[in-house]
Amino acid sequence: MKKTSIKGVGLYLPSRIVTTEEIAKRLNVDPARITRASGIDSRHIVTNETSSYMGAEALKEALEDAELQLQDLDCIINASGVPQQAIPSTASLIQKQMNGSDTGIPCFDINSTCLSFVTAFDVANMAILTGKYKRIAIVSTEIASAGINEKVIESAVLFGDGASAVIMAAIEGEQVGVLGSHMETYSDGSSFTEIKGGGTLIPPRAYNEHPLEDFLFHMDGRAVFKMTLKKMDGFLTKLLNNAGIAKQDLQMVIPHQASGSSMEIVRKKLGFSVDQFMNIIRNHGNMIAASIPAALYYAIRENRIKRGDKVMLIGTSAGLSIGGLIFEY
Amino acid sequence: MKKTSIKGVGLYLPSRIVTTEEIAKRLNVDPARITRASGIDSRHIVTNETSSYMGAEALKEALEDAELQLQDLDCIINASGVPQQAIPSTASLIQKQMNGSDTGIPCFDINSTCLSFVTAFDVANMAILTGKYKRIAIVSTEIASAGINEKVIESAVLFGDGASAVIMAAIEGEQVGVLGSHMETYSDGSSFTEIKGGGTLIPPRAYNEHPLEDFLFHMDGRAVFKMTLKKMDGFLTKLLNNAGIAKQDLQMVIPHQASGSSMEIVRKKLGFSVDQFMNIIRNHGNMIAASIPAALYYAIRENRIKRGDKVMLIGTSAGLSIGGLIFEY
Repeated sequence: MKKTSIKGVGLYLPSRIVTTEEIAKRLNVDPARITRASGIDSRHIVTNETSSYMGAEALKEALEDAELQLQDLDCIINASGVPQQAIPSTASLIQKQMNGSDTGIPCFDINSTCLSFVTAFDVANMAILTGKYKRIAIVSTEIASAGINEKVIESAVLFGDGASAVIMAAIEGEQVGVLGSHMETYSDGSSFTEIKGGGTLIPPRAYNEHPLEDFLFHMDGRAVFKMTLKKMDGFLTKLLNNAGIAKQDLQMVIPHQASGSSMEIVRKKLGFSVDQFMNIIRNHGNMIAASIPAALYYAIRENRIKRGDKVMLIGTSAGLSIGGLIFEY
Repeated sequence: MKKTSIKGVGLYLPSRIVTTEEIAKRLNVDPARITRASGIDSRHIVTNETSSYMGAEALKEALEDAELQLQDLDCIINASGVPQQAIPSTASLIQKQMNGSDTGIPCFDINSTCLSFVTAFDVANMAILTGKYKRIAIVSTEIASAGINEKVIESAVLFGDGASAVIMAAIEGEQVGVLGSHMETYSDGSSFTEIKGGGTLIPPRAYNEHPLEDFLFHMDGRAVFKMTLKKMDGFLTKLLNNAGIAKQDLQMVIPHQASGSSMEIVRKKLGFSVDQFMNIIRNHGNMIAASIPAALYYAIRENRIKRGDKVMLIGTSAGLSIGGLIFEY
C-alpha cells in the first residue's frame, strides 16, 4: 500500500539578520527586557528577496536533498499565509522562478495562515494515497515584515522572514506515513488575529480612506492564547485518537513557533520535555506558515528525528484554528 | 467503495444589476458594439455585500438543497481567486458569517484563481476517497469589482460579482463520482493575468509609491488565448485519458466563463454543441472562481444534467493554468 514519505527538505533564510536589540533601540525600549519577554534574539529579514525567490531557493535545496529534478514533481503546492501577489497563485510564481514553465507542473495555493503547511501536508498525503500524485513539493514562504506594525513592540519583535520546502513522495511500506490529522476552526476568534485590508473587504485602492493599521497585522495575543488553552486538551485527544497512538508514543513535537512564552506554556501543559519540542524561535522569530517546516528542517538536519520516529506537527493559526498531523518519519 | 457525490448547490447574486449599456455610457463608448464584442448584457455587482456574506448565503441554499445542517459538515473549503482579508482565511470568515464557531468545523482556502473550485473539488474528492471527511462544503465567492480597472473597457465589462456553494458527500456506489482530473501550469504566462500588488511584493502600505494600476487587474487576453489554444488539445487528451472516457461520452461541459468570444472559440475547437456547453456569461459576466460552480448550479437547477450524466469542468486561470475534472453526476 502507498504511503507518504518525506524525501527532502530545504530552507532559505535572508542573509540580513536583525537583532532584537536593534529593534528595541529603534523603538526606544529596553533591549534586555524585550529580548527576555519575547524569547527572540534575532530574525532574518528580506532586503530584496521576493516570496517566490525564497521559495524557489528552499525548493532547490529540497530537490537536491531528495535527489530529484524539478520535472520529477507532479505538483507544487504553495502553503503560505500571505501570497506574493493578489493574482496569480504564489505556487505559479515559484514555478516561474525555477524556470519551470516547460514542465507544466500543476501549481496551486493552500491557505490556513500559520497552519498552511500542515493543511498542505494533509492534502499531499491524500493525493498520494489516492494515486493522484507521486511526488509533491510543498513550499511555505513568508515575508512577515511586509505587514508588520512596527509601532507595536510585540509584533515588531515577533516575526521573521524565510522559506521552507518539503518533498513528499509515495513509497510502498507498512509502517511509514501519515498516521492521522485533525483541525478545528473557531471563528469567534477570527478577529483575534487579522490583517483586515488587502482583500475584497478593504482593497488596496481604498488605502487612503483607511487608517494604515487596517493594512497591518493585528493580534490580540491574550485572546488567542485563552481560546487555545481552552480547546487544546480536547483537540489533542482527537488528534491522537485519529492517529491511533498515545502521547507517549511520540518521539518529537514540532509546534508552530507562535511565540516564546506561549510555546513554553503549551509544552508544559502537554507534558513534553524540552528535547522533544522543537524550538527555533530564538534565532528565527515566528515565520508564519514557514515556521513548522523550518523547525522540521532542523529536526531532520540535526538528526533529532530518525526514520521510524513518530512526529507530531501542531499549532494554531488565525481563524482561529488549531491543527495538527502525526506521521512516522 | 466510497465515491463523491454532489448533494446540494447554492448561489448568491447581488441584487444590484449593472448593464453593459450603463458601463459603456459611463466610459463614453458605443453600447451596442461593446455588448456585441463582450457577449455580456449585464452582471451583478455588490453594494454592501462582503465576500463572506455572499458565500454564507450560497452555502445556506446548498445546505438546504442537501437537507443538511451546518454542523453536519466536516470541512469548509473556500475556493476563491481573491480573499476577503489578507488574514485569516475566507473560509473562517464564512463560518463566522454562518454563526458556526461552536461547530469547530475546519476551514481553509484553496487558490488557483479562476480554477480554485476545480482544484477544491479534486481535493474534496481525495478527502472523501481516503475517508478523511464525509461531507464537505466548497464555497467560491468573488467581488471582482474590487480590483477592476474601470478605465480598461475590456475589464470593466467582463467581470461580475457573486458566490456559489456546493456540498460534496461520500456515498457508496459503483458508477458515480469523480472519473478523473488534470491540471497544467505554464508560468511563462504568469504575467499575462495578474494583480501585482496586495501581497508581499507590493504590500498595500506601499500604495502611494506605486501607480494605481499595480493594484488592479491586468490581463493580456490575446497572450492568454494564444497560449491556451496551443495547449488545449494536449490537455484535453490527458484529461479524458485520466477519466478513461472519450469526448463523445460527455453529456455536458461546464467551462470557466472566461469571456464570450473565447468560450465560443474553445467550444467549436473542442467540438461541443451549444446545448452541451453551459454559457451563463450574458447575465453574469466572468465571476472568477465562482463562474464554474455558478454554471454548474444552473445546469442542475434547469435539469440540463441528470444523475448518471458525465460532466466535464474545464477552464484556464492566471498562472497560466489549464485545469479540468470529469465526474458522473
